[in-house]
Amino acid sequence: MTNIAKAIAEVKDLLGDRCSTAQSVRDLHGANEAHYAAMPPDAVAFVHTTQEVSDVVKACARHGCPIIPWGVGTSLEGHALAVKGGITLAFTQMDKVVEVYQEDLQVTVQPGITREALNEELRATGLFFPIDPGANATLGGMTATRASGTTAVRYGTMKDNVIALEVVLADGRIIRTGSRAKKSSAGYDLTRLMIGSEGTLGVITEITLALQGQPEAIAAAVCDFPDVDAAVNAVITAVQMGIPMARMELIDEASLRAINAHSGLEYPIKPHLFMEFHGSDGAVAEQSETMKGITVDLGGGAFEWTTNTEDRNRLWAARHNAYYASKALHPNQLGLSTDICVPISQLARAISDTQADLAGEGVAGSIIGHVGDGNYHVLMFSHPDKPDQLVRNQALAHRMAKRALAMGGTVTGEHGVGMGKMKYMAEEHGDAWNVMADIKRTLDPQNIMNPGKMVQVN
Amino acid sequence: MTNIAKAIAEVKDLLGDRCSTAQSVRDLHGANEAHYAAMPPDAVAFVHTTQEVSDVVKACARHGCPIIPWGVGTSLEGHALAVKGGITLAFTQMDKVVEVYQEDLQVTVQPGITREALNEELRATGLFFPIDPGANATLGGMTATRASGTTAVRYGTMKDNVIALEVVLADGRIIRTGSRAKKSSAGYDLTRLMIGSEGTLGVITEITLALQGQPEAIAAAVCDFPDVDAAVNAVITAVQMGIPMARMELIDEASLRAINAHSGLEYPIKPHLFMEFHGSDGAVAEQSETMKGITVDLGGGAFEWTTNTEDRNRLWAARHNAYYASKALHPNQLGLSTDICVPISQLARAISDTQADLAGEGVAGSIIGHVGDGNYHVLMFSHPDKPDQLVRNQALAHRMAKRALAMGGTVTGEHGVGMGKMKYMAEEHGDAWNVMADIKRTLDPQNIMNPGKMVQVN
Repeated sequence: MTNIAKAIAEVKDLLGDRCSTAQSVRDLHGANEAHYAAMPPDAVAFVHTTQEVSDVVKACARHGCPIIPWGVGTSLEGHALAVKGGITLAFTQMDKVVEVYQEDLQVTVQPGITREALNEELRATGLFFPIDPGANATLGGMTATRASGTTAVRYGTMKDNVIALEVVLADGRIIRTGSRAKKSSAGYDLTRLMIGSEGTLGVITEITLALQGQPEAIAAAVCDFPDVDAAVNAVITAVQMGIPMARMELIDEASLRAINAHSGLEYPIKPHLFMEFHGSDGAVAEQSETMKGITVDLGGGAFEWTTNTEDRNRLWAARHNAYYASKALHPNQLGLSTDICVPISQLARAISDTQADLAGEGVAGSIIGHVGDGNYHVLMFSHPDKPDQLVRNQALAHRMAKRALAMGGTVTGEHGVGMGKMKYMAEEHGDAWNVMADIKRTLDPQNIMNPGKMVQVN
Repeated sequence: MTNIAKAIAEVKDLLGDRCSTAQSVRDLHGANEAHYAAMPPDAVAFVHTTQEVSDVVKACARHGCPIIPWGVGTSLEGHALAVKGGITLAFTQMDKVVEVYQEDLQVTVQPGITREALNEELRATGLFFPIDPGANATLGGMTATRASGTTAVRYGTMKDNVIALEVVLADGRIIRTGSRAKKSSAGYDLTRLMIGSEGTLGVITEITLALQGQPEAIAAAVCDFPDVDAAVNAVITAVQMGIPMARMELIDEASLRAINAHSGLEYPIKPHLFMEFHGSDGAVAEQSETMKGITVDLGGGAFEWTTNTEDRNRLWAARHNAYYASKALHPNQLGLSTDICVPISQLARAISDTQADLAGEGVAGSIIGHVGDGNYHVLMFSHPDKPDQLVRNQALAHRMAKRALAMGGTVTGEHGVGMGKMKYMAEEHGDAWNVMADIKRTLDPQNIMNPGKMVQVN
């Protein structure tokens, strides 16, 4: 029997002032960075410990009250919206490094720490955590959405970099998945089951991550290409030759225009690759020169590479600001950012079809791709007072998703399912989606864990 | 209601001669390479297609008949023993490469193909599949046990190299998990749930794997050390410096003695590292020289590295034959091979404690370690007519497992749970083991999928 008010009363008894029903607090935790309408929860609980999370979940379980985990709210598919009301669990104050294991290249963190804060804390150790979604997201959110970013081509996604988890289940039980061993063949991989489950199977309360040693040298490079095909083929060739690229980003003409304007740069308006190489001094020089040869063969323009830190930081700041750069060119408009991922052999065709689609509708969408992964993003804008433009952008995103499925890919490479990609789950997974629902029902029989997302349980 | 005879009759109707109840065939599929007593199934079904697997599983489901998948029977923990009788599904004749995706560095295979046969088929493509457990196992078995091997330090385990699966569930439904996209945030990671589930959640009928480009150059190196500590510290230093080692194997004195005798080599009887570096000519030279410097700092002996293919093949053949080399020193004895995995910072201590343990009991056990992963193996022997020796070896293996848990590790890094490691699951996973049982009950309510393994469902 759902009784949200009773759950809130019990959580207030547990947390006092740290359970808030103030409208401003609810609104803050019901908003999102994307185009979804706001859906505030009935209350926000600022938890401090795993035990508190467990106690709150138990209270919610007693009253059938929905629980929505919240990091910093940077998700792009409405993952943390309170579709059915309930209590949002804010991890804002559960944001500490628990322990650094220097020799093991591991760190255990609370879910509320952001990736930038984590790397700041790690600076003195010579280690870093490589995964970098565009936003300064929390590690909890990144784990829950199986996030990745520009370095996935070298270091993998959250799937590959989370070693162990502590999770509070729907009945309040606290479990640990995995261990600090680098690998294991002991039992079902509950760690990977929780990664990407978007809060629908449990609440992540602690995360042990694999770290990387700071490379001795880092080189960045930029090259333009006559068309997207040539740029993608350069990356395919590099992958096949085993060049261990650390970053390999495709920037289309529209994105480049925005980046030039926003960051005061003057790149020619052509498809570009922004690249990075990690290794020893000798290795990055060799990788850069090999890559230069590949780009020349494919008609690439001037290939400039540098190990200068300042130049490199400027390049990647420009890249990471691409989303905001495009937004700046469309002031007061509503951004719709979508992503798909296809086999890399299909990527050039997927992107050129999307470009044709955008041109056909007269939409100034910008495309950015993690080419080595076959993953790309489109950002489109609409006037808030012209709802038909949003509908048109959604139709374009829909065609992208259908294209991904037709090409043997996935409707989202890194943004996640949330509200926006639910409608494709049956088509992408077939009967496997029913298996997901079976697992959901088993672990969350009352459907209180971030309900209305990921699976269809009724 | 369990009625194995009725299930066999129906499967004979489906497969004709390819469902065998001949004693010799049953015995062959009830044996194992380890120390477990033979447990033959009631019948063996040689399947040819996914549809046949589905039909056989449906027949078994109708009659509550156990189903045990079988690759080539090289598992070391009795995974494929017919504990409760039933029908063994032999994939011996379902061993084809389905399709190579050259540009995507992917291949789809049937589960019965062995890793050596796969690499033979890939030879002309310039691509290879790196995971190499000691035995020439099937890809189905390797997937089901989450196998790894000497190259995991560079390329990861099966968890990291399987992209998508086709699986027949306990009710005969055929599902596909994952897609050919390199990454996805769409839905629960059923691929990783199936990897390592040892046939207890479903039968794997098709596997899509990530491949690697053949490196331009490969260097192999050998170095001896005054003690295990120094060897392990050399590896920790190399990992922290980001040297992308492809192989990093610790061979203890006992293993080395066996290898020398078996392969006609003359390495000094000291702990050794056998190493391999993959990359460009320049990169492998640089990595080798950097590693040489590290070993010198830690008191290592002569460090010899070579890119000569013949020398390299001789080295790794000797390493891969270590198990058989030790067996040759103990003719007609029963081998017990066990493995654990600990955080790398604990590895030197774990190994020296194990060595002291072996010495204390007067057991000539040999130790081989995938040092970069914190994973090591002990191989011990017992006379078949002296059962107390087997009991003593099992007690030593037990102490290793307990030590792994005390150090924050896992009771098996790559062999799997099977029959041998079930007893540690509660201690390693706590309440998470109950969650595994919940998932098992959901996907296999009759407990017909390789029953008696991995989880406790009653």
